[in-house]
Amino acid sequence: MTIGAMPSPLHFHFDFISPYGYLASLRIESLAARHGRRVEWHAMLLGVSVLKVMGLKPLMETPLKGDYIARDVPRCAREAGVVLGRTPGAAVMNPLPSARAFAWVRRHHPAQAAATAHAIYQAYWGEGRDLSTPQALQAIDVPGGPSGHALADAAGSDEAAALLRADVEASLQAGVFGSPTVVVDGEMFWGLDKLDQLDRWLTRGGW
Amino acid sequence: MTIGAMPSPLHFHFDFISPYGYLASLRIESLAARHGRRVEWHAMLLGVSVLKVMGLKPLMETPLKGDYIARDVPRCAREAGVVLGRTPGAAVMNPLPSARAFAWVRRHHPAQAAATAHAIYQAYWGEGRDLSTPQALQAIDVPGGPSGHALADAAGSDEAAALLRADVEASLQAGVFGSPTVVVDGEMFWGLDKLDQLDRWLTRGGW
Repeated sequence: MTIGAMPSPLHFHFDFISPYGYLASLRIESLAARHGRRVEWHAMLLGVSVLKVMGLKPLMETPLKGDYIARDVPRCAREAGVVLGRTPGAAVMNPLPSARAFAWVRRHHPAQAAATAHAIYQAYWGEGRDLSTPQALQAIDVPGGPSGHALADAAGSDEAAALLRADVEASLQAGVFGSPTVVVDGEMFWGLDKLDQLDRWLTRGGW
Repeated sequence: MTIGAMPSPLHFHFDFISPYGYLASLRIESLAARHGRRVEWHAMLLGVSVLKVMGLKPLMETPLKGDYIARDVPRCAREAGVVLGRTPGAAVMNPLPSARAFAWVRRHHPAQAAATAHAIYQAYWGEGRDLSTPQALQAIDVPGGPSGHALADAAGSDEAAALLRADVEASLQAGVFGSPTVVVDGEMFWGLDKLDQLDRWLTRGGW
């Protein structure tokens, strides 16, 4: 880091279907701010990293681990004082419309990317709304951000699909496979449980 | 918990091949002691839970995740001030002799189970010694515990094999799939990163 330069950002990689990503999204900005950092938001797709690249099965369909996650997510939410509008074991939405809309906002309205991520996460995990179609995004309200209609239009566009493909590929190239993952100054921190260690790492400036 | 009764123990499930289990083993007793708890040690086998029950591939052979673990383990060790005698990517020992010897000690010398687990973990992860055969256990020194020769004899016995099978089955029945996992008062905490949350949970008496 150059003296006088802005510290590099925390790169926050997330999938909208990930409850741990949602819970982390509610903490990441205050964590970053404590260390004078900003957050760059990156949509990734667990369906690509976990299923295709890693060759694993969906988390909730994995014996034992699925049962654990179903108990751990509500516990983590309770600790954080967050009310979840859906359970991890419920039907999973198709994340593509939301992720595509986010990728489009990130490119064309980068200053509204964080607010858009929060609004979509809030609708899905906070309120339990299904967002599996572009049309469902019409009801998303991003304070000061793009309209729900703009999100829905973007979600159905070829451009957004291409932008998301590039973003997902970039996440994979960075080595990201899970949600949430934070990459900062060449270090990668995977998992909601890892935010405490990230906080300590930023405080001490590495080990 | 009955008033006046000893609080229930922390059930610490671990695999000797797991570096996260090793790092957790160095913290679990002080964590338990802070809450007036004792630790019960349980050997489990990732080769059974991960490969056979969950149908996944070995962690270090999983694309992306293997690379991450190879960086994360040394980082976690550095933060804890622990020097590792081997890298996570190196050849993995056959954990059966160690796990069988441990299961035998747990049954016949329960007061020495913790010291035995520490001695084996120290030899493998601290000093980088290969313990893939019962004979290799002859050099294990358990302070105040069973001799290395007793461990080696136990490791090669049918009785120890049966004891371990029962212990591994009991861990699976409890829902344990990863190393380390702590089970206490019906709650399960999986992962080295989860010990901070376990600590908070014990402090607050649940959420």
